Parts: sequence; C-alpha cells; structure tokens
Amino acid sequence: MKVGFIGLGNMGLPMAASLAAAGHELTVWNRTESKAAPLKEKGARVARSPAEAARGAEVVFSMLADDAAVTSAVFGQDGLLAGLAPGAVHVSSSTLSVALSERLAEAHASAGQRYLSAPVFGRPAAAASKQLWVVAAGPKQDVDRCRPLLEALGRGLTVLGDSAPAANVVKLSGNFLIASMMEALAESFALTRKSGIEPKVFLEVFQSVFARSPIFEGYAQLIAEEKYSPAGFKMRLGLKDVELVLGAARTAEVPMPLASLVKDQFLGGVAQGHGDWDWSALGALVAERAGLKQGG
Amino acid sequence: MKVGFIGLGNMGLPMAASLAAAGHELTVWNRTESKAAPLKEKGARVARSPAEAARGAEVVFSMLADDAAVTSAVFGQDGLLAGLAPGAVHVSSSTLSVALSERLAEAHASAGQRYLSAPVFGRPAAAASKQLWVVAAGPKQDVDRCRPLLEALGRGLTVLGDSAPAANVVKLSGNFLIASMMEALAESFALTRKSGIEPKVFLEVFQSVFARSPIFEGYAQLIAEEKYSPAGFKMRLGLKDVELVLGAARTAEVPMPLASLVKDQFLGGVAQGHGDWDWSALGALVAERAGLKQGG
Amino acid sequence: MKVGFIGLGNMGLPMAASLAAAGHELTVWNRTESKAAPLKEKGARVARSPAEAARGAEVVFSMLADDAAVTSAVFGQDGLLAGLAPGAVHVSSSTLSVALSERLAEAHASAGQRYLSAPVFGRPAAAASKQLWVVAAGPKQDVDRCRPLLEALGRGLTVLGDSAPAANVVKLSGNFLIASMMEALAESFALTRKSGIEPKVFLEVFQSVFARSPIFEGYAQLIAEEKYSPAGFKMRLGLKDVELVLGAARTAEVPMPLASLVKDQFLGGVAQGHGDWDWSALGALVAERAGLKQGG
Amino acid sequence: MKVGFIGLGNMGLPMAASLAAAGHELTVWNRTESKAAPLKEKGARVARSPAEAARGAEVVFSMLADDAAVTSAVFGQDGLLAGLAPGAVHVSSSTLSVALSERLAEAHASAGQRYLSAPVFGRPAAAASKQLWVVAAGPKQDVDRCRPLLEALGRGLTVLGDSAPAANVVKLSGNFLIASMMEALAESFALTRKSGIEPKVFLEVFQSVFARSPIFEGYAQLIAEEKYSPAGFKMRLGLKDVELVLGAARTAEVPMPLASLVKDQFLGGVAQGHGDWDWSALGALVAERAGLKQGG
Repeated sequence: MKVGFIGLGNMGLPMAASLAAAGHELTVWNRTESKAAPLKEKGARVARSPAEAARGAEVVFSMLADDAAVTSAVFGQDGLLAGLAPGAVHVSSSTLSVALSERLAEAHASAGQRYLSAPVFGRPAAAASKQLWVVAAGPKQDVDRCRPLLEALGRGLTVLGDSAPAANVVKLSGNFLIASMMEALAESFALTRKSGIEPKVFLEVFQSVFARSPIFEGYAQLIAEEKYSPAGFKMRLGLKDVELVLGAARTAEVPMPLASLVKDQFLGGVAQGHGDWDWSALGALVAERAGLKQGG
Repeated sequence: MKVGFIGLGNMGLPMAASLAAAGHELTVWNRTESKAAPLKEKGARVARSPAEAARGAEVVFSMLADDAAVTSAVFGQDGLLAGLAPGAVHVSSSTLSVALSERLAEAHASAGQRYLSAPVFGRPAAAASKQLWVVAAGPKQDVDRCRPLLEALGRGLTVLGDSAPAANVVKLSGNFLIASMMEALAESFALTRKSGIEPKVFLEVFQSVFARSPIFEGYAQLIAEEKYSPAGFKMRLGLKDVELVLGAARTAEVPMPLASLVKDQFLGGVAQGHGDWDWSALGALVAERAGLKQGG
Repeated sequence: MKVGFIGLGNMGLPMAASLAAAGHELTVWNRTESKAAPLKEKGARVARSPAEAARGAEVVFSMLADDAAVTSAVFGQDGLLAGLAPGAVHVSSSTLSVALSERLAEAHASAGQRYLSAPVFGRPAAAASKQLWVVAAGPKQDVDRCRPLLEALGRGLTVLGDSAPAANVVKLSGNFLIASMMEALAESFALTRKSGIEPKVFLEVFQSVFARSPIFEGYAQLIAEEKYSPAGFKMRLGLKDVELVLGAARTAEVPMPLASLVKDQFLGGVAQGHGDWDWSALGALVAERAGLKQGG
Repeated sequence: MKVGFIGLGNMGLPMAASLAAAGHELTVWNRTESKAAPLKEKGARVARSPAEAARGAEVVFSMLADDAAVTSAVFGQDGLLAGLAPGAVHVSSSTLSVALSERLAEAHASAGQRYLSAPVFGRPAAAASKQLWVVAAGPKQDVDRCRPLLEALGRGLTVLGDSAPAANVVKLSGNFLIASMMEALAESFALTRKSGIEPKVFLEVFQSVFARSPIFEGYAQLIAEEKYSPAGFKMRLGLKDVELVLGAARTAEVPMPLASLVKDQFLGGVAQGHGDWDWSALGALVAERAGLKQGG
C-alpha cells in the first residue's frame, strides 16, 4: 500500500520502519527533517509537509507528542487535512485527548475522508521489535482495510468498535493503570524501606509473586463480570488488611495516601452493608458513584 | 519432622496437606474439630488444644484468620506458648499486624522458643496445588532448619532477613498492591463502560497488554534502584496523560479519586522542578515525604 | 457616571439596582429582556445588545453565569468589545476562569479599552442589602476611577494589585474554602449522627464554637505569616487527634476521606522531622510541595 | 464544693484557677509537682497522687495530654479510681479516644462512681480568660450537679445527652474541622502566593469575607437540616468553580489534593443525578456512603 507517516520521534520512527519492512511504500514527514534519514536510506520518500506526505496515500499514520502537535499537523497550513484524498484513511496513533479525537472524526468526515484511532501500548524498544499492542477503533470497513498495516506494527490488535475516540479512552486508561501501579509501588517501597527491608529484596518478592502472574488478571475478570459474590476474599477482610498496612505505616512514619483512599473505599462498602462481598467489589462501589447501574 | 499445625481453614487445610504429602508427621488442631477429618484419614493426629498440637513437635505452623485468633491460640489457656518445647520453632503464616508479630517474637524468646514469620501469597487453590509463594523472616539458623517445610508449601521462597516482623510488612504490602490495582481497575472499568466500551473488551486489552507482561516489573525495578534519570517517559508527560484521563472522566461523569491523587503527585513533582525525571520518580516523591533520603 | 450593566440574573439585578440607587445613570442588557423591567421602572435604559449597553458608557459591568456567557457577551456579534469606547472601563464581576480573565485583559488592551476584574463575595440577599464584599484588581488609576461604583455595591472592598486575573484567583479560592468547609462539615455531621448525636445539637456546638469566632482567622494569620514555631499546638498532637477521629469513624463505620487526607499530611510532616512545629505548618508542607520557598 | 483537679498543664492550670476563683475548695495533683505552686499560693491543697486528690472530693476533674496519661492517672497505682468515693463524679476534660471514654464509663459504673465527659474548646489564653466552650455528656443528674463547675470554666456549655463518649466524638469533630480548614487555607495560600498575591492581602480578604461571618454557619445549618433543595447554588456550579480552581492551580503548578477530593465528590453527585441540588448536598453524599438514610 501507499502509506504516509507523520511524526518520526522515538515511537514513530520504529513504527514507520516496521511498515517499510512489511513492504509498504512510504512517504514520511517530520518537523525536524534529519530524523527521516534512516528511512530515506531504506527507500522512503521524504515530504516537506504533512499535506505532501498525505497526497496520493491510501493510508496516513500520525504519531506525534501531544494534542498541540497533532492539531498543527492536521489543521495547520499544508496540513494532513488539506492533502488527504477523499476516501483515504488517517490512522491516528498518538495519545490524544478524547475531545481532539472527536474533532478529528468530524473534520475528516466533513472532508469525505476516513479516520481511525489506533494508539499503541509499548515503549520504543517494543516498537523496534514489533512487540507493540494496538487498540483500534473506527468504522469496521476501515479497520479491515488497515488491518495488514496495524498487524505489521506489533504482536497483536484489539478492535474496539465503531467510535474512534473509544480507542483513546482505552489508551489513556492503560496509562492510568501504569501510573496507579507506580504510586502503589512507590508507597510499598517507602513502607518496606523504612521498615528495614532492602528494596532489591522487595523487588524480588514483587517479581516472584505479581509480575507475570495471573493475580491482577483474575481481579480484572471479576470486575469485568461484576461477579462479587460469593466472595473469594471478603471486603471486610480487605478492610482489615489495609488497616494493618496503615498501622505499619504509622509505626514507620510513612504517609500512604493511596492506602488511605482504598481504606475509605472499603469502609464505605462495609458501611453500606457489603462487607461480605468480594473485595473486588470496589468495582461496584466506583461504578455506582459514577451513576452506572450494576450490569448496565 | 514432627510438625504441629494450628488452624485448618481454607488456607491451613491444604497447607497442612502439603506438609503431610511431603512425608512429615503431623499433629493438627482446629477450633472446629470436624475440619480435621481429611487429614486424620491420611494419618495425622488430631489434638484437643494448640498446646497439645505443639507438644513434642520440632516445628508448629499457625495459619489463622486474624490477630485475635492468633492471640487466643498462642497466649490463651492451653495455648501454643504453653505447649511448645524450648528450642522448637513456631512458624506463623497468618496475615498479622506488625505489632502482634513483634509481641510473638518477644514472647517466644522469653520462653526459650524460636519464632519465624512466614506468610504466604496465594489463594486456597494455589495452596492446594503447591503454588504458594512464601516470604520468611527470622534468625537464619531457624529459616535453614525449616526450609524443607517452607519449600514443601509452594513454588518458591524469599528469605527476608533476621527480623520476623519484616515478613508481615511484606505480606501486607503485597495485599496493598492488589487492593490498589483493584481500585485502579475499578476506576478504569467505570470510565471505559461509561464511554461505551464493553467490559469484556477492556478486559481483553488488559489481559493482552498488562497481565503476564514485564511492564509493572520494569517500573518496580526503576523504583527499587531509584533510577529516575534519564527518563524513559518524563513526569511532565505522565502528568499530561493523567490530565487527559481526568478530562475524559469529566466528560463521561466518572469520579476517579485515584487518578486525582496521582495527578496531584505528578503536579507536585513538576512544581518542585522534577518534570524531566522519569514518571516512576513517584518513588522519590513518596520516599521524600516519608523522610527517607535518596538511596538511603 | 454613565454606567452599562450586562447580566441581570440573581446577582446582577440587585447589583445594578445598588448602582442606580447611588445615583448613576444606567443602561442595562440581559439576554431575557423581561428581567430588566424592575430597573426600567426606576429609570434605567434597556439596550438590545451588549454593544448598545456599552456605547456612551464610562464604565460597563458584566455579571454573567460562566465563561461561555461572558465570552459570547464580550466577543460575540454586537458584543461589549465592539461597543465600548476607547478609555472606557469594563468591570467584570463574574466568577471566571483565570484564562478567560487574561484573554479579556489582552483584548481590551488591544482595543484601547480598560479592564478591571472585580468579583464579589455574597449571595443574592447580600447583594440586595449591599452586604457584598468586592475584590478588585487592575491598574490603580482604573480602580480609583471606579471606586465609587465598587463601594456602592457592598460593605467593603479589597484592592489586590495591578493584574486583573489575581481577583479571579482570589474569588475562586474563596469558593474553594467554602466547598472545603462543606466537605469537612459533611464528614463531621455523618460521624456525629452515626455516633448518636442529633444534628441540631452538633450544629449548636458549631455555632457556639466556630461561627463568628476568631479561630479560623487566627490560623489563617499563622499561615499568612509562616509563623509555625513556637507551636501553640504541636503537629504531632494534631496527628494524634486526627487519628482519634479516624478511630471513632472506624467504629461508627463512616468513611472520612478529608480526615484521611489531613492525617497523611500531618504524618508526612512528622516523618520529615516537623512534629514539634505548630499544626498550622500544614501551610509550609503544602507550599513546599508547590515548589514555593519559605517566606518567598 | 470540694473539687479535685488532676493535670496542671497549659490548659489544666488556668481551668483549675477558674474553679478556685469561683470559690470552690481545690485539691490538685500534677506529675511535676512544682507546676502546682501558683494554685497552692491561692490556697489549694497539693496531693501526692491522683487517689489522694480524689479522696473526699465530690467532683474530680482530669485534664491530661492523652490516652496514656489518663489511663495511668485513673487505672494506675494510687489512681483516681482507687481514691474516688462512691457517688462522687469524675469529669474528664481531656481530648480522649472514644474507646477510652467508654472504658472509663464502665470502670466508674462498676465502682459505684459517676462519670462525665466534658472536653473544652479553646486554647490556654481562652482558658485563662474563661472563654472556653464546654461540651458535656453523661447522666442528666450528674450534669446538673456539676453545672456550676462547668459554667465556671468558660463562656458557655452545650449538653449532649446521656452517653459520655458522645462529648469526645464532638470534641474530636471540632478539632477535625480546624485541621480541615487549615488544609484548605494552606492550599489557598499556596495557590494565591504562586499566583502573585501577597499573603497578607489574601489574609485581609479572608478576614473580611469569612471570619466572623455567618457563611459557614449557614452551610452547617443546611447540612444539619438536610435541606438541599431548592438550591441556593447548584452542585453543578460548585463543580464548575472547583474545576476553575484546579485549572488555576494547574497553571500555577500547585498541587491541591483537597480541591481534587471536593471535585470528585461534586462530580459523583452530578453523575448520580444530583447536579441541581444545592452544593451543600455534599452532606447527603457523605452520609449515604456512611450507610445513613436521609433524615434518619
């Protein structure tokens, strides 16, 4: 296929290289043109503007730093919007706001163009070794058309449905899960360090017990299926354990705001009469506060 | 070895069975005696009190529900303390408060007895299939002596050092990590559900991207080694992404207190001049607030 | 003076009436024109657009619901910006974002017009009885020129300095203080109610002890002056008391997230070696996390 | 009356002096006896133990630093419990845990003695000038009997009911309100300082607008009466304002965890369909999470 690629940063460059390696004909654009050199050597054409990169392409990827960079590359002078042919597809892989993704969907539709959102999970090294995971959303026919390209980027693909911004919500939620785990780890390492345990030893426990284990997956499944009863581990016991964590943190003088947050969530669940539900019923408490009906 | 086992609940029963299967001679006690029947059939002796289960044993395990149950079984009438021979070892596998673990260490020392703390990670099914992970702490000679028993319980063992209560801190920290991940998942599922994404599809993404992947492990390592620079992903970008999460949550009307907490942590880091550090430097911010020196 | 007034809602109507009562010549505009009737009866002229209300006026007030309403009334067709004479002043009393206030400052400056930000504290009843408190910011000469009008609105005026958006920050901070006190009250009433105390009795205590007392004022002064030592009441005692609150909340099963937040702040202060500072040194902890230097 | 007084610290000494000034016959005890000198000069008898201070007294006050000090003075050797005559009253004014207050109630009842809880609001200066506010709880006949003493301590008294520990909950809730206001002030001062506003100017606004004003009182009344509709100021507007606060905080780079907490509470209220309620309906949201029924 004739493919345009806009944005050759740490992520974009290896992604474009994967497409080239899969045999597609590439025209690339980057604000700093010199970054395109490695692709030029492999036969890619280097465009002077996003519009030029889009001209004649069936599909154009964009992989840029943030909303501002995408807004400029798409809506600016000689932007993607001006160059993309009717019926051609813009595949946006950047981590964008949902609002900008909605605006892109509307703008491309108005111009008779197609739009997919397809952000990726993985760091530069994963991009280079085709280990990215792609989450794509948009009209089925466009996803099908781009599937060979999306599959050339990484080790797998999840298709989320018709509405392109959904993929942005999922990508953002994934980054939120990482940030949350880091806060949890930060508090755990602070507690264990102040309690006299070597960080490398706690790391070893984390690696042995949690990493690559099905623990988190199992809880994700309970929440996805809203299957909180019968309990594998009751919420009142979860509350007790988090209180013991806070007790140890008090003794060691370690503030643990995430532990306090979880404690108050469990305490609310117990106060509302759900102490015998599984502790994963945090899922139900949070959903209720968001105005969601159970199972709805 | 002659081994006592106190507490035959969902966890204790399969753990005791593992010890029996490994060829050790068991005397067991449970408040509700009928629970001991399956072990009796396999040749275990059933004691009438914790003291009786301890008498003559080289090592006695306890696996009970909470501090109160352990306090009663050890310090109560006909308790373990009264029955355990000088030089014999009490291995406590319950999830206890650090304070009670310290009290047990002192009491056994006063009585000329030995004490190890060896809580386990894993659910009843893992106990039955010898898939538990054991974290043990206490004097090295006692750990060495009990090693064959500890290894018979599960798939691996981490030894934490001389001070028994350290194992309790680690066990509690592990449960805290699970509870934190559940809160993060609860908020993510609420956000994606209200944004129109099927829970089972988001679950699929979670399974593909996070579960059994080295992502969390990698961040744990950065925090353990306090290696926050050069950044793989800068804190100011982490802040931006969490703000996009909160923006999406605003649109969908989903309160996400953990996302707010992490946002404020990142914002504090940026305000204090660390925007170019890796976003895992949450580890440094939390440690500093706990009064820990970097690397100290 | 010849005064324009844009926005005759619950707040704007009595404010405009105060200006009329002080003898100023009014031209008013409201989206729903009928709301202007009471002022028309008192001799005010009713304009058909914000531009018309501004034409010929020395000073034009705006008091509208939100950023969107102000943006439309100022920048829209026949908007204030188009009608205001060079040298005439726009006094914005709405509760605006700082960003919009900055945009207004720039737009009026470009047009050779003057701009003050002067939001008010008080509810409609206070506006009707001239009990509002006005916080004004902008160039001194403009504040001086508008002073008679600003003083006609309420019982007092604080002038904040040259930069108009500062008044918006102060107004927003004031509303934040109210919202915070409501969360604190909400948690306190929940705790006392579940502990068997009649809400009206706790209200009586609140009225007797806190309302109209100098307690909060005293603490505000300590924080303003960063005078945290010697302590009137040490942070470690503050920590102890909040822990007792959380203990009572545990017993009554009342989640108190604000109490947890404050507990973690105090615990962090103690962990960092400030346990002997006054508990108002929360001010120092929060300022440090914002990257502020003490006294700077 | 013949009155014992145990604990002559910053608070106890002026309180005992108030009782002496009101003409009561005092026997006092303090761990460090020299502190009793000023009272001795005024005719008070100095006891060698809490028991001796209690012997022969109709009423004994205790005003000590914490649970540990009270436990020791009451239950220790030569403690108050041993010296107090049957029918005589122990009035505990210390800031205690609810749990210890319950234990005191039981212990005195078992000994045929009477027990009131009567903590005070106010700092040492207020104690010296009889400006304390007393909250008393316990059997009505005992409150009536001690009323002249309680009224001699300060400017007023609220009687809370039969159950002594209720007074401890109210005292702790009061200290929680102060700590919460300090956190709110700390965040507000950080935001305004970083936005270029002099702390003394923001202090002036706080003094003019909030201190000694009926604002907080008005909201406390709405929460006490659960009168959230019709709204004076709608929750969705409260949400908007707190979001503007967080926007200003983002620009100034000031982490404001309390603002984030309140934002999420409002957002939850809006998500659950209560956006048109008064913003004080935080009271309803918090109560619901505590398992309280509206109005119940």
